[in-house]
Amino acid sequence: MVEIVEVSPRDGLQNEEKALSTAEKLELVERAARTGVRRIEVTSFVRPDRVPQLTDAAEVATALTRNGDGGIAYSALVLNAKGYDRAVAAGIREVTTLVLATETFSDRNQGMTTGEAVETARWIRERARRDGVTVAVTIGAAFGCPFEGEVPDARFAEVAARVADLGADEVCLADTIGVAVPSDVEARFGVLRGLTDAPMRVHLHDTRNTGVANAVAAVRSGVAALDASLGGIGGCPFAPGASGNVATEDLVYTLHRMGHDTGLDLAATIEQATWVTGRLGVPVSGRLATVGGFPR
Amino acid sequence: MVEIVEVSPRDGLQNEEKALSTAEKLELVERAARTGVRRIEVTSFVRPDRVPQLTDAAEVATALTRNGDGGIAYSALVLNAKGYDRAVAAGIREVTTLVLATETFSDRNQGMTTGEAVETARWIRERARRDGVTVAVTIGAAFGCPFEGEVPDARFAEVAARVADLGADEVCLADTIGVAVPSDVEARFGVLRGLTDAPMRVHLHDTRNTGVANAVAAVRSGVAALDASLGGIGGCPFAPGASGNVATEDLVYTLHRMGHDTGLDLAATIEQATWVTGRLGVPVSGRLATVGGFPR
Repeated sequence: MVEIVEVSPRDGLQNEEKALSTAEKLELVERAARTGVRRIEVTSFVRPDRVPQLTDAAEVATALTRNGDGGIAYSALVLNAKGYDRAVAAGIREVTTLVLATETFSDRNQGMTTGEAVETARWIRERARRDGVTVAVTIGAAFGCPFEGEVPDARFAEVAARVADLGADEVCLADTIGVAVPSDVEARFGVLRGLTDAPMRVHLHDTRNTGVANAVAAVRSGVAALDASLGGIGGCPFAPGASGNVATEDLVYTLHRMGHDTGLDLAATIEQATWVTGRLGVPVSGRLATVGGFPR
Repeated sequence: MVEIVEVSPRDGLQNEEKALSTAEKLELVERAARTGVRRIEVTSFVRPDRVPQLTDAAEVATALTRNGDGGIAYSALVLNAKGYDRAVAAGIREVTTLVLATETFSDRNQGMTTGEAVETARWIRERARRDGVTVAVTIGAAFGCPFEGEVPDARFAEVAARVADLGADEVCLADTIGVAVPSDVEARFGVLRGLTDAPMRVHLHDTRNTGVANAVAAVRSGVAALDASLGGIGGCPFAPGASGNVATEDLVYTLHRMGHDTGLDLAATIEQATWVTGRLGVPVSGRLATVGGFPR
């Protein structure tokens, strides 16, 4: 069993030019659930001026959690104490927080040093333990940084050690700008596995056509869960043609053909990938929605 | 060292709706050579009514080989004795011939049984040995058939054994319809390796976003050469959105980042991928030409 985490409502929408209405976001989450996925990152509790697409985070989360979760884990991204408090107030019981691997990116994205981000994650971890909330910590730009370029092995190992030390429920490595290749994935998850027994997750972008290859490498490196996005949405509007997360339907095709169960239904992922890209008015970034599975 | 074989002038153009002029084809080969590639599949000597894009095979090959090869191996696809004779008369010194893994596809594509295709390949092999011409044999649809669907392990093994027995200079497995996943690639090259000591090549289509993952699996399975196509051209005009061969530039990015030398220059592959897709009026199917390499 390999778990897929549907992140289109958060990372997908965050990077699309067109914002969906709150009702459309709720429909996206409901449609994502029809694929069989059991964990959905539904929004991000961040500064509205930074991510205008997700200003309705509280409404989305409250609407989803009001009547229980129906067996779906609705998670949210939070970057600080305020975001954590807002998320929990809106009924969220699983959060992901972020430590960026380089100082420059951490400063630009969160206005803090990596050390401060680790301490913020520690605060969230401790509060969450008291609240009974599940916490994942993601190391962002773990394979390369848009500002500093290469993230040296020693730097990655140092950040990974500090993150592992937090004792989170799950540790995730993110290829935020889509530069990793399989050997990188194997090497860095190998380092991480040596530092923690926590379940490992990976967050991949298919920017350079390595998303599926990296997913295969991650699964073979012991990663238990993979983020993915219906239709591969989330292409950055400032980099035309740059794709977003690896497409859920492409990952499902590959994993199923390799003999892994995901609990998702390929035809349902194609149907919902087609729906969300149509609603956003963007091309499908993945391939399966265009060509279909095999055998027919 | 991993060798890349540029196949855009043959498999790329064969599947594009728009035909290039003979002069444009010669320019494509010349531009491909500027990437650093040292083997180029330049055309196919097949029935003009079946592949109207390549009716000028003899002119293309003759023009390229007239003044020597300049260090480039110009190869061509031939499906029978007549095609072989035409290729050699046009100066070709390296041919690839094809045995399809299923009877239905073999009948539809070549009008012969798989057994007859093996015997045709044997004739070509023997004639080529006398002529000093290099022969590769490709097992087409080795991972799945557009008519029969799955190609069972036993069927693949039987066809592979008959092909291995031909004693060709190289044996290639082709994922003709782009359905393979890495575990398939590893399994079938494992079988092939047990049958022959000939160098192994792989021909991958990126139809279902598995091209790069399969390329990595192939290299790790001992494959020495990979077919690729600038811009990923070759999307079938009858299946909109279906991509062609794995894009040369995407493969170069991944292989170089994994520490393999290919002899190609990434920036040059991006430049020529942009040129050929522009000339054909099709979108670039690969990713690197849009987003560029890493680090910058």
